[in-house]
Amino acid sequence: MALDGRIAGHGIGALKDGKPPDETDNANYFCEYAFLYHQMDMLEDEHRTGAYFNAITWNPESFKDKVVLDVGAGTCILSMFAAKAGAKEVFAVEATDMAVRSRKLVQAQGLSHIIKVLQGTVETVTLPSMVDVIISEWMGYFLLRESMLDSVLIARDRFLKPGGALFPSHATLFLAPVGSAKACREKQQTFDGERQHFDNFNCTMMQYYGTDFSCMQEEFLEEQRKYYLQTGMFVNLAPKQLAGSGSPVLEIDLSTITLQDLKDSAKPLRCCMRISRDSQLEGFTGYFNVTFRGSTQNPVKEVVELTTAPTTKTATHWGQQLFGFFPPLQAKNEDVLECQLFIKRQKKNHRLLQLDSAFELCRESNGKRFVCQKREAVTSRIFRD
Amino acid sequence: MALDGRIAGHGIGALKDGKPPDETDNANYFCEYAFLYHQMDMLEDEHRTGAYFNAITWNPESFKDKVVLDVGAGTCILSMFAAKAGAKEVFAVEATDMAVRSRKLVQAQGLSHIIKVLQGTVETVTLPSMVDVIISEWMGYFLLRESMLDSVLIARDRFLKPGGALFPSHATLFLAPVGSAKACREKQQTFDGERQHFDNFNCTMMQYYGTDFSCMQEEFLEEQRKYYLQTGMFVNLAPKQLAGSGSPVLEIDLSTITLQDLKDSAKPLRCCMRISRDSQLEGFTGYFNVTFRGSTQNPVKEVVELTTAPTTKTATHWGQQLFGFFPPLQAKNEDVLECQLFIKRQKKNHRLLQLDSAFELCRESNGKRFVCQKREAVTSRIFRD
Repeated sequence: MALDGRIAGHGIGALKDGKPPDETDNANYFCEYAFLYHQMDMLEDEHRTGAYFNAITWNPESFKDKVVLDVGAGTCILSMFAAKAGAKEVFAVEATDMAVRSRKLVQAQGLSHIIKVLQGTVETVTLPSMVDVIISEWMGYFLLRESMLDSVLIARDRFLKPGGALFPSHATLFLAPVGSAKACREKQQTFDGERQHFDNFNCTMMQYYGTDFSCMQEEFLEEQRKYYLQTGMFVNLAPKQLAGSGSPVLEIDLSTITLQDLKDSAKPLRCCMRISRDSQLEGFTGYFNVTFRGSTQNPVKEVVELTTAPTTKTATHWGQQLFGFFPPLQAKNEDVLECQLFIKRQKKNHRLLQLDSAFELCRESNGKRFVCQKREAVTSRIFRD
Repeated sequence: MALDGRIAGHGIGALKDGKPPDETDNANYFCEYAFLYHQMDMLEDEHRTGAYFNAITWNPESFKDKVVLDVGAGTCILSMFAAKAGAKEVFAVEATDMAVRSRKLVQAQGLSHIIKVLQGTVETVTLPSMVDVIISEWMGYFLLRESMLDSVLIARDRFLKPGGALFPSHATLFLAPVGSAKACREKQQTFDGERQHFDNFNCTMMQYYGTDFSCMQEEFLEEQRKYYLQTGMFVNLAPKQLAGSGSPVLEIDLSTITLQDLKDSAKPLRCCMRISRDSQLEGFTGYFNVTFRGSTQNPVKEVVELTTAPTTKTATHWGQQLFGFFPPLQAKNEDVLECQLFIKRQKKNHRLLQLDSAFELCRESNGKRFVCQKREAVTSRIFRD
């Protein structure tokens, strides 16, 4: 009966705060959002805040006299945009104590008659009515880290009127081949040094304490390999570091994707990255776009897009995630890097991701296409488990 | 009836693994100890490992044919020292999956017939008998961070035979006045910059998004003050940075202190730090010693001490904790810095500390002693709450 909590209208009643997140999830995840410095970090990301501002205030017909739900409201900045765009009522749901501050902020803007701040997880609040629009900034590194989209989908299933709109409405995850990446080379060097580190360590343990740790060597190197070579790196790539353009590997229509689709990927995601110059491929990168199109029944007039692609301009606070090929692949112009990807959640912390991927570098020669290099079972984490 | 779990003999029965730590405590604390790199960091601290090695192997009469309990055994290094010193049986209790590895290590040394590795918290294991000696490396930053001593005292009350020994047997926390500390000046400068940061932030929010965050300014500065000015810094001080020698503020006899004593400090701790040269006091530092004296009934032959005091030699992995005076105090040779200190546990995470302190800088002039500067309600955290 797990679906029951997600049927439309579940959680409708007298307006009521929800419950706090469970203690472990709070320690692992929510706690950071209770800090103003972190909220400001996000607010100061002009791509992010600007895109939401434009998406909402350039489309007042999507908000005029509408009832809006803001999932994970933080400082209520999106709720305030919605109020300014003409919303009749906004339910701003925030699990952390940031809710206390956002009430003050809302009051200071003279918007308390429109924005009702509810403290608690969106899974546990009670709203007095269904809503016309859900706004939320739920994206994490590599789009899905934090697993916050779950909460948006639960809110959608419970609270969104038929034909209602989600802001953003669509999300796309891209992969792109990376030519030169100093960060990858440095990780390789550090990892290589760990072999010597262990030898020195074991010598010391033998010499001074008569204890032989050599049976731990493989496990230690495996641990360090996971940390240095199999963990995504936060980077801000310049476009010139790419060896080809990004290719969509996952496209999400927020109005139709189910929680089940999101959690289970029995089939791998696939994409083909076209290489646009002869180059050593030191890794691949992941980044995302979200777009604000409204709903099919209520499309926006001005479509707005937010992208976290590599740029020469100011970077977003999401940057990109970089994963190295160890050793690099040798690619030629017009090669195609085919990728199969499973995005899983880490067992110990469902808000972190594990990527299991496989690559084939394909080339045409004499009119025939062949696989010239392969990488199987490439595992990465975002972040350390 | 909270004491029941701590009466002697509670937890005696057929040898049995314990339970894992609760999930939140694991996320907040234990998880880090499951990594080999972290265990190696500690093992490579030659002050630490060397002191335990000496304390145990230089005192074989304390271990010969004895039953030993190792609380929080990690890689079982201390258990292996005890076995080499002649222990008959060692129960090595480790809560994390490091227990699985330490079983391998113990086997590789050919010590499986002596060392029994139990996985679980010491509060939940069952031992077949009382023990003669408890060995444990439970010290955290500022001695008490991690609150692991709790577990050692519970183990003592349940499992240690009357007259049995604790290794270490005594611990002393010292405070010392710090003259010059670049780290403090840098924190002050960064904090000062946050005022401008907020102004810039609010300007942007007003200009681009029509939203006024000024009602958050005080809370933001308070948050940043806590982070930059009221949080202990990990440092390795050189002795020349001290403006006077260290003074003991807390002395623990592990054989007699109760859990209650440790948790409640209704009365403040006190110490007097003598200033040994005219100097600006940019802060104060905390560090500790532990000593291995055995028990009153079974004293060791060779007393060993482990100190984390500032040194010109290799530092310990504990370093020292540094707390700034903002602004600095102006001290003269022969002044005395009197300190009152409450060491509390943070509400959200009992393994982290909050220090509430007050200082008086006292001077003698014409034979009269007077307080020339005061600092009241100096709060610091180890670390961020």
